[in-house]
Amino acid sequence: MKGFAMLKIGATGWVEKEKPACGPLDAICRPIALAPCTSDVHTVWAGAIGDRKDMILGHEAVGEVVEVGAYVKDFKPGDKVLVSAITPDWGALASQGGYAMHSGGMLAGWKFSNFKDGVFGEYFHVNEADANLALLPEGMDLGAACMISDMVPTGFHGAELADIQYGDNVAVIGIGPVGLMSVAAAAIRGAANIYAVGSRKNCADLALDFGATKIVNYREGDIVEQIMELTRGEGVEKIIVAGGDNDTFDQAIRMLKPGGKIGNVNYLGEGDTIKIPRVEWGCGMGHKQIVGGLMPGGRYRSEMLARLVTAGRIHPEKLITHKFNGLENVEPALMLMKDKPRDLIKPLVIID
Amino acid sequence: MKGFAMLKIGATGWVEKEKPACGPLDAICRPIALAPCTSDVHTVWAGAIGDRKDMILGHEAVGEVVEVGAYVKDFKPGDKVLVSAITPDWGALASQGGYAMHSGGMLAGWKFSNFKDGVFGEYFHVNEADANLALLPEGMDLGAACMISDMVPTGFHGAELADIQYGDNVAVIGIGPVGLMSVAAAAIRGAANIYAVGSRKNCADLALDFGATKIVNYREGDIVEQIMELTRGEGVEKIIVAGGDNDTFDQAIRMLKPGGKIGNVNYLGEGDTIKIPRVEWGCGMGHKQIVGGLMPGGRYRSEMLARLVTAGRIHPEKLITHKFNGLENVEPALMLMKDKPRDLIKPLVIID
Amino acid sequence: MKGFAMLKIGATGWVEKEKPACGPLDAICRPIALAPCTSDVHTVWAGAIGDRKDMILGHEAVGEVVEVGAYVKDFKPGDKVLVSAITPDWGALASQGGYAMHSGGMLAGWKFSNFKDGVFGEYFHVNEADANLALLPEGMDLGAACMISDMVPTGFHGAELADIQYGDNVAVIGIGPVGLMSVAAAAIRGAANIYAVGSRKNCADLALDFGATKIVNYREGDIVEQIMELTRGEGVEKIIVAGGDNDTFDQAIRMLKPGGKIGNVNYLGEGDTIKIPRVEWGCGMGHKQIVGGLMPGGRYRSEMLARLVTAGRIHPEKLITHKFNGLENVEPALMLMKDKPRDLIKPLVIID
Amino acid sequence: MKGFAMLKIGATGWVEKEKPACGPLDAICRPIALAPCTSDVHTVWAGAIGDRKDMILGHEAVGEVVEVGAYVKDFKPGDKVLVSAITPDWGALASQGGYAMHSGGMLAGWKFSNFKDGVFGEYFHVNEADANLALLPEGMDLGAACMISDMVPTGFHGAELADIQYGDNVAVIGIGPVGLMSVAAAAIRGAANIYAVGSRKNCADLALDFGATKIVNYREGDIVEQIMELTRGEGVEKIIVAGGDNDTFDQAIRMLKPGGKIGNVNYLGEGDTIKIPRVEWGCGMGHKQIVGGLMPGGRYRSEMLARLVTAGRIHPEKLITHKFNGLENVEPALMLMKDKPRDLIKPLVIID
Repeated sequence: MKGFAMLKIGATGWVEKEKPACGPLDAICRPIALAPCTSDVHTVWAGAIGDRKDMILGHEAVGEVVEVGAYVKDFKPGDKVLVSAITPDWGALASQGGYAMHSGGMLAGWKFSNFKDGVFGEYFHVNEADANLALLPEGMDLGAACMISDMVPTGFHGAELADIQYGDNVAVIGIGPVGLMSVAAAAIRGAANIYAVGSRKNCADLALDFGATKIVNYREGDIVEQIMELTRGEGVEKIIVAGGDNDTFDQAIRMLKPGGKIGNVNYLGEGDTIKIPRVEWGCGMGHKQIVGGLMPGGRYRSEMLARLVTAGRIHPEKLITHKFNGLENVEPALMLMKDKPRDLIKPLVIID
Repeated sequence: MKGFAMLKIGATGWVEKEKPACGPLDAICRPIALAPCTSDVHTVWAGAIGDRKDMILGHEAVGEVVEVGAYVKDFKPGDKVLVSAITPDWGALASQGGYAMHSGGMLAGWKFSNFKDGVFGEYFHVNEADANLALLPEGMDLGAACMISDMVPTGFHGAELADIQYGDNVAVIGIGPVGLMSVAAAAIRGAANIYAVGSRKNCADLALDFGATKIVNYREGDIVEQIMELTRGEGVEKIIVAGGDNDTFDQAIRMLKPGGKIGNVNYLGEGDTIKIPRVEWGCGMGHKQIVGGLMPGGRYRSEMLARLVTAGRIHPEKLITHKFNGLENVEPALMLMKDKPRDLIKPLVIID
Repeated sequence: MKGFAMLKIGATGWVEKEKPACGPLDAICRPIALAPCTSDVHTVWAGAIGDRKDMILGHEAVGEVVEVGAYVKDFKPGDKVLVSAITPDWGALASQGGYAMHSGGMLAGWKFSNFKDGVFGEYFHVNEADANLALLPEGMDLGAACMISDMVPTGFHGAELADIQYGDNVAVIGIGPVGLMSVAAAAIRGAANIYAVGSRKNCADLALDFGATKIVNYREGDIVEQIMELTRGEGVEKIIVAGGDNDTFDQAIRMLKPGGKIGNVNYLGEGDTIKIPRVEWGCGMGHKQIVGGLMPGGRYRSEMLARLVTAGRIHPEKLITHKFNGLENVEPALMLMKDKPRDLIKPLVIID
Repeated sequence: MKGFAMLKIGATGWVEKEKPACGPLDAICRPIALAPCTSDVHTVWAGAIGDRKDMILGHEAVGEVVEVGAYVKDFKPGDKVLVSAITPDWGALASQGGYAMHSGGMLAGWKFSNFKDGVFGEYFHVNEADANLALLPEGMDLGAACMISDMVPTGFHGAELADIQYGDNVAVIGIGPVGLMSVAAAAIRGAANIYAVGSRKNCADLALDFGATKIVNYREGDIVEQIMELTRGEGVEKIIVAGGDNDTFDQAIRMLKPGGKIGNVNYLGEGDTIKIPRVEWGCGMGHKQIVGGLMPGGRYRSEMLARLVTAGRIHPEKLITHKFNGLENVEPALMLMKDKPRDLIKPLVIID
């Protein structure tokens, strides 16, 4: 089979590989919708996870099951399925302890395009199929379905980590596709004002559509000052970090109230340290909680988020700004993510 | 001053009283909007809280401050204010332990029209004014503002007690004004499907407007069967009880998944016991959590909920189906609550 | 192989069966220590889980691995292992949602001596061995180790469900072996006073040894009155129910403060309903939370509890009052549990 | 009246002041036991909270009430009382939101020897006496009682922030008096192994007495390496930071498992930033939670912790290594804290 791969750091290309083997708990799927992710870009061109040789890229997909192992009970060939970007080992100690995304080691629940070939091939392998796939709900838009792999669960985890309560004022820093889903997540978690930090027009428009009450443009002044002014000097109760860099945490602490919480879902790919400003952190005493985490993966999560789409609570299909057809077009779709034209939020590739 | 009072169990009338005295932390307000509550009806005609003599009724109000004590810092005469129906003693042990509504004893944070005169008078007394009043946000509809006294915080507390998570299917049993606010609360807390149990058309319509995905009419069959069918035999993850009676818990347990939670905000005024069905409760082992609680009161809560109104997340003014003018009309407004015509959700009385 | 079985409701005896088959994720073990449980007694003589034919009894064991499936990574023949009484399917939706004990249906994580043969045989089968076994820590007393199957995790879950906080006064109702472990659990969870409700002398003595501050003997008066007196009329903050019957909840609600929590770990085998007293439950408004749940099973839990034994925090071996040798003695050991002589807490059978 | 004061940064001395005035909710107390705190040292000689002129020092005391305001209900002259070091405004918004220690601004619940005169005088003033004092339990050792002002609640808050669960391995970094109470707190919160990081012999001995299972001496090698070795490369589940400096967080992150939590109760008095190592923090994705917070103050907290002393769960009186008599000896007692002889843990001054 062929697949679109990272050949080495800085280089991509098509490779020919054996169709993956199917263990007793596994499934083999073919993609019917795919989306490239900024992580793919970081993986290839920034070497964010280290070197990889001829590894097929991609972890966002809707699939069709083509083969299942002997112990798979809930799926059969022909089933159309949601595929979680994070596919934990559910029996692992970390999973039993509530952190399945870290089963096998920190972040090791992330397997596609990390420890094994990803989904940008004619076929891809899913471990523990009963636990990591979910049936595609009838009538679900393929764009929305594909966003349930990663954009929706990652964005929503930001709101969970920030622990939003009714009436909280919330800053969402970064309004790429993950941050936009964080905005949507905050809006249906009980946030009052949502200050969405970004600068691109189409993202800002969608942020407002998804529930942001105000766009804070970092090109128009310091975001800490802007948010402190919007909150009459009080700061916000909660912050979701879905973009920026290591310095973003310094800003976040400065605009956060005592007792506030920061939930990070932005992969920090560079630099040695994240710096927390001592005085604004209350000299260690301000109850300003900082946590970041990889999205929870697996079937349960996919099903619960799919319910939100089906019930009309969220509209992740609106993230899709560019559409392609045919597996071969994952290459230009990925290049689009790399080049990030200003009208891009997320491309989608439909296969068949 | 005059006020509309419970004269004794079963009897109401206008009484003449001294204007209440203002302690150093207190405020005296005059009402600018009032609403009667089903609790007022239960208090008078069912004797739900025992007998009371010439006690002025009412605990839902928007007010104007007319006098403040020497130690009140944040309010002054002329300020228009949100008034919480529950006005705790904030320094009490129960409050420090997180249950201010039980300061001074179980449910004793409820003072208006319970332990002291309520708000249906020319003036009313507010203890710990800085902690129990909140400024009326500029431009806020008086109907919405008045609903922040009780209907909004009570309805929302149901969703908090039920601990709704993203994608949960939720049953809201009872869609009077509190249940309707529970529907709205569930919708902005991350519920997927919301099954609203009720039968009155205007309530059903507003439930759908507030975010219910399906009306379950108890006149059309057993609600447990209907909800089990809607959930393909699985039951719901969470239940908010905002109506019904002691037997409602039996139904709730039967339609609840293992690991599910029931949050009750319905005042149970009659009967000796609530009966939990043993087998469906997992023989005590099913992790089906049951809790009910009086709404959290006070200024912080009022401000956070007011933010939700101002940000356009909720529209409690839609509860108001009948409007009156003048203090004297609290009497017919209360009678309306007592008689409950089918087109009634909530009446509002505007003063001045 | 032979095993000691429930032949039908009310009858036990030795049966001859095939040695169980080992699937790819499974292990076959032989027991090296066994203990009968009150549940075994209820299963046989009260028919608590319905009829069963020739089902080998028992779910408390320390084992030695004799065979493992091809996909088992962490265990090999010869390993001595802790065996969890509850052996969930870890990939199931219920498990991913945090309730592995209900994987496959309410309470269905309980498999031994329920849906399949238990551990009172020459061999027993363990599903998902990597996830449901744990290595026996070197030097651990076999009695303590065997109590990690069920008595320790069940007793400790009571303290978790009751959500004990520093300084809470806690009532533990029932001081059989589970209740005694609840006492120990409360003591190392931050409880201040622990009122242990029971009457048997050896249990009372061990309760005091495990951290109870006071024995409340129901033979010496109403336990609600006794506990209200001990707490100067305030009641306790938290209650663990580890014994009694359906009526125990009525007592528990009456002795519980507003905002208090009841954690039940007692299997309620009879009666139609549990009755909650309306007024004392705050008319549904008192924030008195009621929850009961089957113990969390699996390897992670076993390892964490084993750490507590190894670190000397708890001493479950003290539960063992009677010791036997040889598999054949599970029969008299079970009869001892059935007859419950006053000097019994828990018998242990050592094999080899 | 006279009091021992910070005259300016770097200078202390006795001052003569008016006896404080008593507002309607307040109490005036005279000290019957006092203890100096490392914070007093930092306040004076490091200028940690900025300059202060002639401010009476001290926030750890047991007192006798000499005067109460007209609205104080629960205390009267002659009552002996526990005095919380943190005395919040209980009606403030921050308090209603669950963070009373930040009422009036971040850390502003800390008033004694910060925003007003402290307890090292002939008399001291307590705001909201009913909410911030607690009766001294009969027979309680004055040393234990005085430690309930600050050392016990601060140490215990570390364990709360770290969210210790049954069986967790916990590192406590710093075993001065606060860290020692954190060790005790971890031991009665369900920790298994407690690795206490320190070097002074008497502290190490008391740590072992309080429940530490192992002393990790930073003089004998890198503490990260030592703890990773003790945990066979896994790291600990939870960390309480009760000493060290800004760099301690770097070490803590390195020895913490994914999903782990750090609770800081060490006042960070110097430096611009706390640095979090990016890779070991899981590139922002490791679910390693960081939070630090000022102790919860007030009467409820004091009473709950006093219960733990009375029930014999903790023995804070063992912290007292040096005893003095007479108010005049707060000066040498403070100098002892400043000079920190190796046999010092905590001095106590008894008055009368």
